[in-house]
Amino acid sequence: MSNIRHALTIKREDDFAQWYQEVVSAADMAEESGVRGCMVIKPWGYGIWERIQRLMDERIKAAGVQNCYFPIFIPLANFEREAAHVEGFAKEMAVVTHHRLIADGKGGLVPDPEAKLEEPLVVRPTSETIIGDAMSRWIQSWRDLPLMTNQWANVVRWEMRTRMFLRTSEFLWQEGHTAHDSRDGAMEETLRALEMYRSFAEDVLAIPVVAGEKPENERFPGAVATYSIEAMMQDGKALQAGTTHYLGTNFAEAANIRFQDREGTQQLCHTTSWGTSTRLIGGLIMTHGDDDGLRVPPAIAPHQVVILPMLRDKPEDSALLDYCEELRAAIAHEQVLGEPIRVLLDRKPGKAAGKRWDWVRKGAPVIIEVGGRDMAGGKVSMLRRDRLWGEDGKPDFSYPSRDEARASIADLLVDIQASLYGEAKERREANIVRDISSFDELAEFYGENQRYPGWVEVQWSRPTGDELSKVVEKLKSLKLTFRNVPMDRGAPNGKCLFTGDDAVEWIYVARAY
Amino acid sequence: MSNIRHALTIKREDDFAQWYQEVVSAADMAEESGVRGCMVIKPWGYGIWERIQRLMDERIKAAGVQNCYFPIFIPLANFEREAAHVEGFAKEMAVVTHHRLIADGKGGLVPDPEAKLEEPLVVRPTSETIIGDAMSRWIQSWRDLPLMTNQWANVVRWEMRTRMFLRTSEFLWQEGHTAHDSRDGAMEETLRALEMYRSFAEDVLAIPVVAGEKPENERFPGAVATYSIEAMMQDGKALQAGTTHYLGTNFAEAANIRFQDREGTQQLCHTTSWGTSTRLIGGLIMTHGDDDGLRVPPAIAPHQVVILPMLRDKPEDSALLDYCEELRAAIAHEQVLGEPIRVLLDRKPGKAAGKRWDWVRKGAPVIIEVGGRDMAGGKVSMLRRDRLWGEDGKPDFSYPSRDEARASIADLLVDIQASLYGEAKERREANIVRDISSFDELAEFYGENQRYPGWVEVQWSRPTGDELSKVVEKLKSLKLTFRNVPMDRGAPNGKCLFTGDDAVEWIYVARAY
Repeated sequence: MSNIRHALTIKREDDFAQWYQEVVSAADMAEESGVRGCMVIKPWGYGIWERIQRLMDERIKAAGVQNCYFPIFIPLANFEREAAHVEGFAKEMAVVTHHRLIADGKGGLVPDPEAKLEEPLVVRPTSETIIGDAMSRWIQSWRDLPLMTNQWANVVRWEMRTRMFLRTSEFLWQEGHTAHDSRDGAMEETLRALEMYRSFAEDVLAIPVVAGEKPENERFPGAVATYSIEAMMQDGKALQAGTTHYLGTNFAEAANIRFQDREGTQQLCHTTSWGTSTRLIGGLIMTHGDDDGLRVPPAIAPHQVVILPMLRDKPEDSALLDYCEELRAAIAHEQVLGEPIRVLLDRKPGKAAGKRWDWVRKGAPVIIEVGGRDMAGGKVSMLRRDRLWGEDGKPDFSYPSRDEARASIADLLVDIQASLYGEAKERREANIVRDISSFDELAEFYGENQRYPGWVEVQWSRPTGDELSKVVEKLKSLKLTFRNVPMDRGAPNGKCLFTGDDAVEWIYVARAY
Repeated sequence: MSNIRHALTIKREDDFAQWYQEVVSAADMAEESGVRGCMVIKPWGYGIWERIQRLMDERIKAAGVQNCYFPIFIPLANFEREAAHVEGFAKEMAVVTHHRLIADGKGGLVPDPEAKLEEPLVVRPTSETIIGDAMSRWIQSWRDLPLMTNQWANVVRWEMRTRMFLRTSEFLWQEGHTAHDSRDGAMEETLRALEMYRSFAEDVLAIPVVAGEKPENERFPGAVATYSIEAMMQDGKALQAGTTHYLGTNFAEAANIRFQDREGTQQLCHTTSWGTSTRLIGGLIMTHGDDDGLRVPPAIAPHQVVILPMLRDKPEDSALLDYCEELRAAIAHEQVLGEPIRVLLDRKPGKAAGKRWDWVRKGAPVIIEVGGRDMAGGKVSMLRRDRLWGEDGKPDFSYPSRDEARASIADLLVDIQASLYGEAKERREANIVRDISSFDELAEFYGENQRYPGWVEVQWSRPTGDELSKVVEKLKSLKLTFRNVPMDRGAPNGKCLFTGDDAVEWIYVARAY
C-alpha cells in the first residue's frame, strides 16, 4: 500500500509521541496556549468533551447523584488536616497569595504587597476537602445518607512536563463525592462508579478497558482503596482513564462528617470519590487514531455525518446545495443510538478534496461528497472513516442513491461504533502476554528490542509496605508500573512473580502514560 | 389575609435584603462555603443553572458560535498590553505567585520560596486578552471571519462585599468572543447577542428587561460601546443581567489580531464580547420570589411538577406509590415548551405537609399531593405555586381526576410561565416614572420616604468626559446610577435633565445591584 499518501506526515510506527501531537493539531482538537501547562481546547476537541459530559452526566444523574458546584479556592487549613492527602498533592499546586495588582512604576504590574492574603488559597487540585466541609454541614442523621454529589469543574495540578489532554496543569473533569452510613454502602458506590466508567469507556468511547483495583503504592492520597479503568494505547502503553476511591473514614474524620445512626449514636461517614477528565480524549486519540488522523466513534462525534458539496463557485452550486440540504434534513430526521443523527452540511468555501482531508483528519465517522455527476445520477459518494482505504490504495467510496444513503446511515454508524471497539479489543488481546513466570523473563520481554510490547498479566502475592516498595523499584528500573488487579479474574494457581510466595491474585504490569 | 402563615420568616416589605438571603437558603439554592467570597451552589440552584446553560447554549450554537475552552490563568503581560482594561480590572484579581507548598515546621504549610513563579499569573476575571491571543493565531485572512467563539467557565473578581449569586468572588458564566472584518459586522454581532439575552431573559426566565446602551462611564474596561439588559427587582432596584460589548479595534491592537482583506491589505479585526452569569439566578429570585419562597418559571425549573404521596409508613403506602408512579410516568410522556415534562415523584420519607412547604419554598411550579382519599376518588390535590393562596387564606388546591391532571398539566405550565412574566412586567411598568423634568424633582422622588421607588426615565443630552462625570457624581449623592439608553425608544422632544441642553435620547436612572 505504498502508493497511499496519508493525511498526516508522521506514521504511528515511526514516532508514536510525535504522531500523537500531529493528530491533536491536524484534527484541530487543541493547541498550546502560551500559558505554562495550559491548553486551549478548540471546537472539535471541545465538542467531543461536550458529548462526553452530556452522556456521562445522564449516567451520573440516573444513579441518583446530584450536581453541585464548589469553590475553586481551598484554604491551606483544609490540606493540613488530612496528612496523607497533603503529602500527595502539596508538591504541585497553584497558590494564590495576593488579591490585587499595582503598577510597578516601570510600565508593568506586580502583586500589591498591601493586598497579601492572610492565608494563601490553593487552586483546587481535587475537592475532597472542600466538599468534606459541605458534607459535614449537610449531614446530620442516617436519613441524610447516602449523600451523593458530583461537580463538573476545572482543576489545577502544576505539571513540569505536559502533553495535551494527557497531562496538563489545568484540566476539566467531573468529580463525584459521596457519603454513606457504612463501609459496605461506600464500597458499593465505589464499584458502581467503576462499572459506570467501564461501560462508558467501552460502550460510548469504544475503548476496551480493564476495571480493577490499584495496588497500594498507586492509591489516591488518603484513600483506603483505589480502583481504575486501564486502557491499552496503540503503542502498548497503559492509560489510566478513570479512578474511583473508597476513602474509608479518613476524610470524614478530617472534616468531621458524622451522622446519628438509627440508635442515636454519632458515627463517622464512609466516603468515596471518583473522577474522569479530558484525559479521556487523549485515550480516544491513542486508541482510535490512525495514520490519517483521528477516528471518532459515532456515539461521541460532534458531527456523525459530514456532507461536502463539491462547490465550484458557479451558478450550478445553488442546485447542488439544495440537493445536499435535502439530504442533510432527511438524515437529521433519522435516529441512531437513541438520538437524532448529528449531520453537518459543510458550506464553507474551499475545494471539496481539501475539505475531505480536513474531515478525515478530524475523524468524522461518515463523509458524504456530492458533485455534479453524483447529483445527476441521484447518487452520493460515501466514505466510512474507519475503513478509509480500498485494496487498490484509493479511498474506498461507495455510491448509494441519495435515499439509500439516508436509509442506511443509522446502521452504518452502529457498525462503525462496533467495528472501532472490536478493532481496539482485538489489538489489546493480541498484546497481553500471560505466560511470563519469572522476573528475568519479564525483564527480557521488556528489553530494548521491543518498542510496543503491550501488557503482561502476572500472578502476585499482594505484598505491602517495604516489600511492595522494593518490587515497585525493580519494576521502575524497567520503566514498568503496576496497573491494576482485574475484577472477577478468578483465583490464581501459582507463585508470585516478585516474592515467590503463593499468589493471591492477578495484576497487570505495563509501561504507562 | 392576616391568617396566612407564610413559608418564610421574613416578608419582602419588611426587609428585602434579608428576605433575599432567606429565600436563597430556604429554597436550598446555595450557601456560604467558608472560603472568602465563594459560594457552594446546591442541587436546586445548580439545576436551575444547568437549565440556563442548556437553553442558552442552544441559542448560542444556533447563531453559529462554537464553544471552546481557554486557560484559567492569564499572564500579567496580557493585562499590561491593554491599558484601559487593566485599569478596570487590576484592583480585584486573584494572583498566583507560587506553584508549591512546603511544611512550615510548625505543622502548617506555606508557599515554597523555591517555587516562586517568574511571572505571576492572574486567575481570569474575564478572557478578552487570552482569547485575543488565540484569535491572533487563528485568523489570517477575511476567509477566517467572522470568528465566533464562546466558553462556559468560572471567573474570579475579588469582591469585598459579597452576596450570593449577585456578587461573589468566583462565579460561573458564559463569555462569547467574536472577531469581524468591519465595525458593522462587529456591531451587528454585539446587538445580536443583546437581543439573544433579551429574549432569553423574557421568554425563558420570564424576567422583563430593557435592552439598551450603557452610558460612557459604565462601559466595560477597554470597550467602545457596552450594552446591557436591565431588569427591575421587586424592591425597585435595577439588576444588570447581561452585557454585550463592541470592543472596536482596541483588543485587536493589543493582541495583534489582524487579517488580510480581499485586496491583500492587513487590517485590524473588530471584536466583541458578551456574557451572562449565575447572577441571572439572583435576578430570578428577586423577580419571582414571594413571601413563601422562590417561584421558578416552568421553562427553567429542574422539576416542573412534583408529586407528593402522603405516606404513612403503613402497608397502604405501596398502593399509593403505585398510583403516583402511574401519574408520574403519564405526565413524563407529555411535552411542554418542546421538551418532555420534568416531573419528580418525591419518595423521600417525611410528612407530606412538611415536604409540601419545602417544595413551595423551592418554587416547583406545580405541586401534586396524593393521599388515600384522593386515590379512592381517582383524584389528586393540585397546587400552582404562582397562585398559592385562595381568597379564604388557605392553599388554593384544585381536585382534578388523575387523568384530568395529566391532560391539563402542559397548558397549566404554559399559563404559569406567561403569568409570572405578566406579573413582573405589570409591576415594572407600574414602577417606571416618566414625568420627572428637573434634577430637584428627581432628588425629591428618591427622597428617604420612598423605600422601593422604581426607575425614572429621563431625557438627556448624552454628555461625555468631565461633564458626564459631574452628573454621575450628582446622581451618586442620591445613590443613583444611569442604567441604559433603551433601544428603539424614539427621539426625545425636550431638554436634558442634567445639562439643560437639547435632549438626544432617553436614559433610565435607578438604584442598582
